[in-house]
Amino acid sequence: MLEILRVGTVAHVGVVTDWGPLVLPMVYGITDDTMYLHGALANSLLGAAADMDICATVTIVDGLVFAKTPFNHSMNYRSVVVRGRARLVTDKDEVLRSLQLMTDHVVPTWNVMRHPSPSDIRATRVVALSLDEMSAKVRTGGAVNDDEDESAPYWSGYVPLTARLGQPVSNDDAGDGIPTQVQNLVGQDIHARSHLDG
Amino acid sequence: MLEILRVGTVAHVGVVTDWGPLVLPMVYGITDDTMYLHGALANSLLGAAADMDICATVTIVDGLVFAKTPFNHSMNYRSVVVRGRARLVTDKDEVLRSLQLMTDHVVPTWNVMRHPSPSDIRATRVVALSLDEMSAKVRTGGAVNDDEDESAPYWSGYVPLTARLGQPVSNDDAGDGIPTQVQNLVGQDIHARSHLDG
Repeated sequence: MLEILRVGTVAHVGVVTDWGPLVLPMVYGITDDTMYLHGALANSLLGAAADMDICATVTIVDGLVFAKTPFNHSMNYRSVVVRGRARLVTDKDEVLRSLQLMTDHVVPTWNVMRHPSPSDIRATRVVALSLDEMSAKVRTGGAVNDDEDESAPYWSGYVPLTARLGQPVSNDDAGDGIPTQVQNLVGQDIHARSHLDG
Repeated sequence: MLEILRVGTVAHVGVVTDWGPLVLPMVYGITDDTMYLHGALANSLLGAAADMDICATVTIVDGLVFAKTPFNHSMNYRSVVVRGRARLVTDKDEVLRSLQLMTDHVVPTWNVMRHPSPSDIRATRVVALSLDEMSAKVRTGGAVNDDEDESAPYWSGYVPLTARLGQPVSNDDAGDGIPTQVQNLVGQDIHARSHLDG
């Protein structure tokens, strides 16, 4: 399950509001036992989520599965659901550590950037979620057709889907060249993430 | 907003359970005013969701945004949040229509497969959600750096991300050849979906 979380891109985080459930995408990072969540989009969510039960779901869609009838259509995917009580991170060292985790989760670039200032850290809201309660579902392979469809003259199978990283586009104010870690992404599948190990 | 929903792949659907919020990925299809949700994974969710408030969020991650400091890191994305009361679809014609919508949402293949039998339709649980209450967020382009970082010697920019469809893999029991609609997917970005218009 950690391996799925390690290669996922965004978490869809659900909280209960006065108006019912709300689900928003957020960036995240993990240790072996904790998930850190962050996102400007989700600052209001983060405010509401502290000390509340939340659910963070990470899904990687790996393929489209075509059966001989739509009833048996499916997708190949890896998905992890983490549930628990959100904890607002207030310790400055833990905020800093979580920012490094969330940065390096996507691409390990912490060492080629300006590190957060004390005021950056004060302005950053991060929520921690224990990985104690999590479950995973994984589907792979082709379609499962009904027995009655076995000889039916329809195609079935699957089409793989990969999240492919393209050529970096530099900011006008970008100093220096493109870091090796970023340049190495070109053409990679972000959900395979071999560049994280290299 | 409809355009984002039209090209998305899965919805992350949140409901409120006795144990707090729960978020699960589901396949979906849309009309101009209704979202239909379905998924074997989510049958229990669908049972719980009928006549309950739910939230269905569709997110497409379009790129990784690298600022000069992690505080300004971001992602490029398109996201739509739909909230409302779930309605369990019980009318047989509407179930059939929703199955066609959900099938053709991914790839228009309804016409090259066995259509659902009455017992398939009875066994299919579909939930409808009105599109009356929805909102979208979109981020594009490069990083927004702090003024103080403008001349800092760090790289910043973005790396585009595309969900690329690969070569179809046929089932052992697949009849006929690979349908043109599926073969045409190879190398396409599923979130651009020009094949839907062609």
